[in-house]
Amino acid sequence: MDKNKGKKLFTPGPLCCSSSVKEAMLVDLGSRDILFIDCVKQIRETLLDIAGVTSNDYACVPLQGSGTYSVEAILQTTSPRIGTKILILANGAYGKRMEKMCQYANLEYNIKCFPETQKITADTVNPLLSAGVQYSTVAIVHCETSSGVINQVEEVGKLVKQLQSGAAYFVDAMSSFGAIPLDLMAGGVDYLVSSANKCLEGVPGFAYAICRKNHLISCKGNCRVLSLDLVEQYLNLEATGQFRFTPPTHTMLAFKQALKEYENQGGLQGRAQRYKNNRSILKKGMAKLGFQELLDNEHDGYIITSYFMPKHPNFNFKQFYTKLADKGQVIYPGKVTDAECFRVGNIGHLFPEDMNTLLNCIVEVLEEMDVPMPLQK
Amino acid sequence: MDKNKGKKLFTPGPLCCSSSVKEAMLVDLGSRDILFIDCVKQIRETLLDIAGVTSNDYACVPLQGSGTYSVEAILQTTSPRIGTKILILANGAYGKRMEKMCQYANLEYNIKCFPETQKITADTVNPLLSAGVQYSTVAIVHCETSSGVINQVEEVGKLVKQLQSGAAYFVDAMSSFGAIPLDLMAGGVDYLVSSANKCLEGVPGFAYAICRKNHLISCKGNCRVLSLDLVEQYLNLEATGQFRFTPPTHTMLAFKQALKEYENQGGLQGRAQRYKNNRSILKKGMAKLGFQELLDNEHDGYIITSYFMPKHPNFNFKQFYTKLADKGQVIYPGKVTDAECFRVGNIGHLFPEDMNTLLNCIVEVLEEMDVPMPLQK
Ligand SMILES: Cc1ncc(COP(=O)(O)O)c(C=O)c1O
Ligand SMILES: Cc1ncc(COP(=O)(O)O)c(C=O)c1O
Repeated sequence: MDKNKGKKLFTPGPLCCSSSVKEAMLVDLGSRDILFIDCVKQIRETLLDIAGVTSNDYACVPLQGSGTYSVEAILQTTSPRIGTKILILANGAYGKRMEKMCQYANLEYNIKCFPETQKITADTVNPLLSAGVQYSTVAIVHCETSSGVINQVEEVGKLVKQLQSGAAYFVDAMSSFGAIPLDLMAGGVDYLVSSANKCLEGVPGFAYAICRKNHLISCKGNCRVLSLDLVEQYLNLEATGQFRFTPPTHTMLAFKQALKEYENQGGLQGRAQRYKNNRSILKKGMAKLGFQELLDNEHDGYIITSYFMPKHPNFNFKQFYTKLADKGQVIYPGKVTDAECFRVGNIGHLFPEDMNTLLNCIVEVLEEMDVPMPLQK
Repeated sequence: MDKNKGKKLFTPGPLCCSSSVKEAMLVDLGSRDILFIDCVKQIRETLLDIAGVTSNDYACVPLQGSGTYSVEAILQTTSPRIGTKILILANGAYGKRMEKMCQYANLEYNIKCFPETQKITADTVNPLLSAGVQYSTVAIVHCETSSGVINQVEEVGKLVKQLQSGAAYFVDAMSSFGAIPLDLMAGGVDYLVSSANKCLEGVPGFAYAICRKNHLISCKGNCRVLSLDLVEQYLNLEATGQFRFTPPTHTMLAFKQALKEYENQGGLQGRAQRYKNNRSILKKGMAKLGFQELLDNEHDGYIITSYFMPKHPNFNFKQFYTKLADKGQVIYPGKVTDAECFRVGNIGHLFPEDMNTLLNCIVEVLEEMDVPMPLQK
């Protein structure tokens, strides 16, 4: 195997993209060129389609930078200069990162940290929403990529709209958008964020927000950072079709191609089905080898799976990781605080044969490390 | 000509890249993969080399997003929570954009707006620096891309160090770095910013700061935005070789290749010479057609040239632009406030034959528009 090419990434992004997605980057377009303006327009429209909403109610606002930038842009843009109070519903690293953003900008907030291994449900959130505090924004993560847990964001959203009608409801759907259904209208979602290099299988370089238009427009003047001002980004895109600042043209050309392939592969249904197949092969194969999942059996996420580190004294994660990478299989370290874990992603341009190859390589590596299978608890 | 491919971009970025730079993006790398970590390391080191400084004194901190993000990151990161006073030396749109950033974040600042058509010199700045106000940061643009004027940033920097020894001296060298010499040590430059898609001829997606290390470290806790915190970005890169948040892996692979080609083409000397040749062909050819430059004859910049719009009633810029684009030649609108201009860039993967082709196309288009040549004043 050519070590420089073709590693399979079982990661939550950057992930494997199809060759045709990458080849779409072989063109230089001017950022004010009509072809590029069309590309941006088409991306923005298609993302609304995928979100299941229309341009009557929502607008798609792409933003240069990584996913974190867009999350921070939402928190900044939805927070009035006076009267901000954010509620963060967290059960993992990405929820907690929002707290950091509030601290950086001196935005007033409450954070409720739920156990990392349990999904956040409407029930558990109810007392927080009815405690008599009026929030300006309520924020939650859809798929907490740090563990793989899927929160009940639709049910929580309904409650937010009931009990906190003045609040903007913000869902970080970075690693789930396009592969896990989410009814924005029914769930009262005012803002959703995802990025190019997740389930839509583009290359990294920008993220995008799906914003309820009437709320977004009410946020003019809020943002404390020029680069992250979603209102101005929106207004400029609407007025000129162009970005305020240099966009990652090649990345967006790749994303346009990725969206085409997404549609050709059956949209959300097709994508979800492929990831579920990946997940099911992984789950069965890993269980057979004796690997233990972090989340209990009720867990039905199919984006990324966290596994406890094997206990055998011959097992060493760094070695395991490197040996797998040498075989062209890239897995991911863990990101939960309470347990030693590693993660395996099912997303990206991965197919059942890739999952089987990974499983075979895992067997080989455990053999090389002299770790007996099935693993003992 | 295939309209989708191969247009020549006479723009200040995104610009034309070589095929090999774009082809470097045909690989998916994990952001924690050793190959990617090596790529980042090599980029950071090479940029210090190009800047003519060593890792004893300076560090290179790449940051996801467009160039504006890195400019804002510097202003935010160098501004203490208490005692900030920024001096902006502006003679164009990019200087003025810094003012906007200060307003967004409520950073105290003074701005001095010089005429857009004249270079900022040490003489003109002297009274500002010695007026008894102590600044935390003094900011200036090297090549004001809005007009093409080149400011005397080295001379100004020497004065800053004499008269404002406590201030961080920040040069936005977005469109000049790598092609116009600048002695950072001699010019007392504490921070310099440029981006991937300018004179180093990469694709857009990130920018980078060259930071004086001892000053950067003194800035811990200043930044009001997690995404733009250069100190944390630096510390994380040093500690792990990795970015804090998902990097644009493909863009960085392209940039690594661009740096290789830069070196092979003779580094700054080679790049400057090619751009100067481009500029000289353009200057001569345009003068022959009767186009008037915005800047006077003393102006020696070779990055981008502003031309007054022809006065002939048959001339219409939108038509001119579109007809040229149809011939595969993309020029750029103007960005100065006081005059109707357009711009032609000399930077990117452009060679003398490209400049000649552009000139020929301009003749054709003027003929098609029935504008007689040479143009009348
Ligand atoms: C749920 C979630 N939020 C935020 C992020 C941050 O995105 P980025 O790394 O692109 O900044 C991620 C990244 O994986 C994520 O999974
Ligand atoms: C001098 C200067 N500063 C800042 C910028 C902004 O960079 P970006 O458009 O990548 O945000 C530019 C862009 O051309 C520039 O030329």
